[in-house]
Amino acid sequence: MYSFTNDYSEGAHPRILNALMESNLKQADGYGEDRYSRQAMEVLKKRIGRNDIDIHFLSGGTQTNLIAISAFLRPHEAAIAANTGHILGHETGAIEATGHKVISVEVSDGKLNPSHLQAVLKDHPDEHMVKPKLVYISDSTELGTIYSKSELEHLSKFCKENKLFLYMDGARLGSALSSRENDLDLSDLATYLDAFYIGGTKNGALLGEALVICRDSLKEDFRYSLKQKGALLAKGRLLGIQFLELFRDNLYFDLASHANKMASLLREAITQAGLGFLSDSSTNQIFPILPNSLIADLKAGYSFSFWKKIDSDHSAIRLVTSWATPEEAVSSFITKLNNQ
Amino acid sequence: MYSFTNDYSEGAHPRILNALMESNLKQADGYGEDRYSRQAMEVLKKRIGRNDIDIHFLSGGTQTNLIAISAFLRPHEAAIAANTGHILGHETGAIEATGHKVISVEVSDGKLNPSHLQAVLKDHPDEHMVKPKLVYISDSTELGTIYSKSELEHLSKFCKENKLFLYMDGARLGSALSSRENDLDLSDLATYLDAFYIGGTKNGALLGEALVICRDSLKEDFRYSLKQKGALLAKGRLLGIQFLELFRDNLYFDLASHANKMASLLREAITQAGLGFLSDSSTNQIFPILPNSLIADLKAGYSFSFWKKIDSDHSAIRLVTSWATPEEAVSSFITKLNNQ
Amino acid sequence: MYSFTNDYSEGAHPRILNALMESNLKQADGYGEDRYSRQAMEVLKKRIGRNDIDIHFLSGGTQTNLIAISAFLRPHEAAIAANTGHILGHETGAIEATGHKVISVEVSDGKLNPSHLQAVLKDHPDEHMVKPKLVYISDSTELGTIYSKSELEHLSKFCKENKLFLYMDGARLGSALSSRENDLDLSDLATYLDAFYIGGTKNGALLGEALVICRDSLKEDFRYSLKQKGALLAKGRLLGIQFLELFRDNLYFDLASHANKMASLLREAITQAGLGFLSDSSTNQIFPILPNSLIADLKAGYSFSFWKKIDSDHSAIRLVTSWATPEEAVSSFITKLNNQ
Amino acid sequence: MYSFTNDYSEGAHPRILNALMESNLKQADGYGEDRYSRQAMEVLKKRIGRNDIDIHFLSGGTQTNLIAISAFLRPHEAAIAANTGHILGHETGAIEATGHKVISVEVSDGKLNPSHLQAVLKDHPDEHMVKPKLVYISDSTELGTIYSKSELEHLSKFCKENKLFLYMDGARLGSALSSRENDLDLSDLATYLDAFYIGGTKNGALLGEALVICRDSLKEDFRYSLKQKGALLAKGRLLGIQFLELFRDNLYFDLASHANKMASLLREAITQAGLGFLSDSSTNQIFPILPNSLIADLKAGYSFSFWKKIDSDHSAIRLVTSWATPEEAVSSFITKLNNQ
Repeated sequence: MYSFTNDYSEGAHPRILNALMESNLKQADGYGEDRYSRQAMEVLKKRIGRNDIDIHFLSGGTQTNLIAISAFLRPHEAAIAANTGHILGHETGAIEATGHKVISVEVSDGKLNPSHLQAVLKDHPDEHMVKPKLVYISDSTELGTIYSKSELEHLSKFCKENKLFLYMDGARLGSALSSRENDLDLSDLATYLDAFYIGGTKNGALLGEALVICRDSLKEDFRYSLKQKGALLAKGRLLGIQFLELFRDNLYFDLASHANKMASLLREAITQAGLGFLSDSSTNQIFPILPNSLIADLKAGYSFSFWKKIDSDHSAIRLVTSWATPEEAVSSFITKLNNQ
Repeated sequence: MYSFTNDYSEGAHPRILNALMESNLKQADGYGEDRYSRQAMEVLKKRIGRNDIDIHFLSGGTQTNLIAISAFLRPHEAAIAANTGHILGHETGAIEATGHKVISVEVSDGKLNPSHLQAVLKDHPDEHMVKPKLVYISDSTELGTIYSKSELEHLSKFCKENKLFLYMDGARLGSALSSRENDLDLSDLATYLDAFYIGGTKNGALLGEALVICRDSLKEDFRYSLKQKGALLAKGRLLGIQFLELFRDNLYFDLASHANKMASLLREAITQAGLGFLSDSSTNQIFPILPNSLIADLKAGYSFSFWKKIDSDHSAIRLVTSWATPEEAVSSFITKLNNQ
Repeated sequence: MYSFTNDYSEGAHPRILNALMESNLKQADGYGEDRYSRQAMEVLKKRIGRNDIDIHFLSGGTQTNLIAISAFLRPHEAAIAANTGHILGHETGAIEATGHKVISVEVSDGKLNPSHLQAVLKDHPDEHMVKPKLVYISDSTELGTIYSKSELEHLSKFCKENKLFLYMDGARLGSALSSRENDLDLSDLATYLDAFYIGGTKNGALLGEALVICRDSLKEDFRYSLKQKGALLAKGRLLGIQFLELFRDNLYFDLASHANKMASLLREAITQAGLGFLSDSSTNQIFPILPNSLIADLKAGYSFSFWKKIDSDHSAIRLVTSWATPEEAVSSFITKLNNQ
Repeated sequence: MYSFTNDYSEGAHPRILNALMESNLKQADGYGEDRYSRQAMEVLKKRIGRNDIDIHFLSGGTQTNLIAISAFLRPHEAAIAANTGHILGHETGAIEATGHKVISVEVSDGKLNPSHLQAVLKDHPDEHMVKPKLVYISDSTELGTIYSKSELEHLSKFCKENKLFLYMDGARLGSALSSRENDLDLSDLATYLDAFYIGGTKNGALLGEALVICRDSLKEDFRYSLKQKGALLAKGRLLGIQFLELFRDNLYFDLASHANKMASLLREAITQAGLGFLSDSSTNQIFPILPNSLIADLKAGYSFSFWKKIDSDHSAIRLVTSWATPEEAVSSFITKLNNQ
């Protein structure tokens, strides 16, 4: 039984574990002030091409989202997210638990654009409503789609004009930036965004996300927020060592490219089989629409998520590939698909 | 330069890393529902001798304290802690950030007793004050002292009579239970406490604390709290594998015993040198009171925390040993001490 | 320029002010423990026909909603409301500010039914989402509609079966219960609801809402919540005296009946003029759909709220009447309407 | 049985009720945007001598404190207060409920000075502790003492140098500014403080406090905070009308002067009787230390608060006078005292 359920079913890429082994008995400072974390910050700044950014390492996506958003907003300010946004439906109200409403925008492709934001602003004119202040986007989105450079530029421009913060959830940023359709790079993100995170957990790390804060006014005292919300690991080295290894060379993007390639093989086979998709994904999550009978057959040999009922005979499922997905698992899935 | 600054200066015990290596590429469910975490829960239940308890794995002490306390209390209820309590002075107001006041009780030895609690209850008679509801204790305490079975029994009785929850921070529980002066075991804790955690981070794990909830009414929906506060790791296996290894045999207590033995060697040497201590510690944190000149000399070869000014010529420092402290580091420190 | 903008444009009914005058220099206990508040509680219990309920007096609707809901819910639990619900769009995220998500349900008439709730429960199956726990309804609704006894009974049954709390915002409860179409009374509310409030501010009081808690488990320590959220007035007598006067005889319902009668006159005239309504209201808020040109003409002599664009030529407005609306204002508005 | 328990035992000064009567049936805008509130703001600005301040009317002291402090602070920032501070012991953890710790400073006279603040800053050096940011003082204090101009100036200077906000709880500001020992006026407060409130509830109003925000950076969006925390009364006129009446002429200070004069008579009689005081109060709260037997005798005819046990035979009580205290009540109390 092979699982395409998610991209965090395995441990870490072996190079990560080796890096932990090698450094294991060396003493280091606690709480992220160790030499590994500092080096990892420097390496990331170089990759992003900016020295005037702050970098913090956290343990997971929900944690990063809730700490960043609650640190950035005043109590009456709200976030805006696509209805598919992870913070809206899959984080147990973590943002609301910090006191902030998340305003939901109905979209079909997981992405926000300026006209969505304009409508939200129009609906929130005064102090009887929350004040929309932070725009939450994800790249790749929860539907596997990605933002183009032009789309991000327009969003950024609108946000600047309207004094909105633009924040990107990069849980699957590796896959997005490694997509064949992508025209963004890390330096663009620092240009267009006020903050974003580079996801490690879903791209080869045991755990870890690197939060990048670009806007000066959002940087102050951020470590207080980390500590207060329980995110400052005593052995912060654990996160630093992993990001150092992921970005020592091209490992981070190599892992994501592999995941994308595996998804691409699945996508092509499904297309050739005459089947369609719920979204236009070029990343490591795809959402094929299959006959329910085929889904039942595939379930015998593979695990994956049921996503959405389409009609009485068809449903969308989600297939997720990762750095760890063996090509044989993909081939055998395709064989099974074609033999139905 | 050897560091006695804390017990989280190294990575993990090598057996922990090996366990991560061996399981690394096996697929497992996410969010703590994997087989490793389930096994670790079963092993811990056996060790504690109780099947009617719930166990959850979290990443750190501050995170565990804030999630447990905020899940257990209603909005107007408060925690009571010794003024030395970690939640009062070293967690950036994490409990208050969830809406709950922490009532501070002045103590000299880090420990609470029923008369302290009685005084707090008397001072909080009605709805113009918060309602004291949860008693936070730590074992070993922040001053290295430990609770005896009799002390814990009396606290527990008072709490039950006054409808207070009794919660123990076990960041250094291994060291406490391995102390030569200790007469408590894990099953006693489940008898006397409503909840407690077994600290992994400071006793050989990369990260990880095992929260044990004993009182039925506090168990319901706890995983919602974990997710909402960003504590549910996608690769929850990381925590389960480590606790499984720590409690597969006696590793957890062996590591703590080593730390205690190293502290004991230091303590004896310091005593023989005619020097005293700030607290009566039998665990892995000791607080010798030294002449300032001696402290300056020791600083040349060792790092450790300055703790408290005693008089114009003397100060207390904190020396912390761990599972990883080599006996040679201790010997050479003692030599240095005696040669001054 | 007469205002139909809302039902809180004037001060208080003269009998209320007289009651304040008469009691003014008598000393009384603070914080709602005065004799007037106690008497008012007794009078309300008699009216409701129940002795096993708790009554608290608060200053306004948003305050009452946020304190009740945050006192009733655990941190991971959420409220469910119709998309028209006051807590969703007109209270500046007050519920979210206490940490709780409000789940929005699209409706056309302002009312929730069991099938709405069933769908919400289905969408929130596990700990990755908030746990729906409290159902917020209003009577009359924000669209002027009311619940029938049968509708409320069905909602109540569903909530009991699914362990949901049922809470009613009664900002305009007087108008609802005085509607010609109403078949509910105060004792029904105590039977079907876990808590509700009887609105004073919008029905003749200077300020004040009477919160009624029917479910035993929600009563404990509620005064702590009042104090903690700043709702316990030092001169709590101010609220008690007003409710005592409103319910000394039939004043509360007489005032609401007058408001309804004035709305009814407007409604009939608008219907006779061949114009329709956005909602089927039998209470003191009506939402006629008018040609934009007519709206512009009416604006010259009356103030009221623009509600919603219907098409390029028509819009819905809101007209609100109150205990203080003079029949002449209504007549002259009708004349103006018919003369266009 | 006459009550010296507090200064909110009666309703409002008759002129206040008359003002409510006169304006009662005039229509006005809701939520504090009415003409009365606007006029009252203008009148207060003139009195304070500043146009660049913002004024908001709220319902009570706890409400004002919690909304101001939570609006001014970021999540990791804390307030500092004297241990006698109302926010520490008499507001049910209202500040902590908004997420902020209150750091307590032991004092004997209810007042803070720069050396207190210096010590707090020294104890909070980094992100493992909360960041002290707002200094809460009250004038008059909870012990009836007052700040001199020089004391306030020094505090203000220290706060500016250390980027701390200085906030004054003015629940009994009228009494403080009317004290014979006072050398501060309203314009000084706007010079030295970042924000403060002028208490109405305890000086003749039915309810109401006027919050004055002096620092520009604290003004933005404050009405959102009012609405979100349930403090924006639909009939905001109720507050505006009262403050307009209190400051139309010298009523506010006349009422406070009367209260002080009544306290002064009590103080002198008690002093002449050879008895002492817990604090050096020149305002409307005094804290005589009396033999327990005398206290028991006085209790037969008067109600007042027991404050503190002094020794086995003596206790401090609190006597509070107000605008409404009749001189005969004071005389008869003195007679009773002298006849023991």
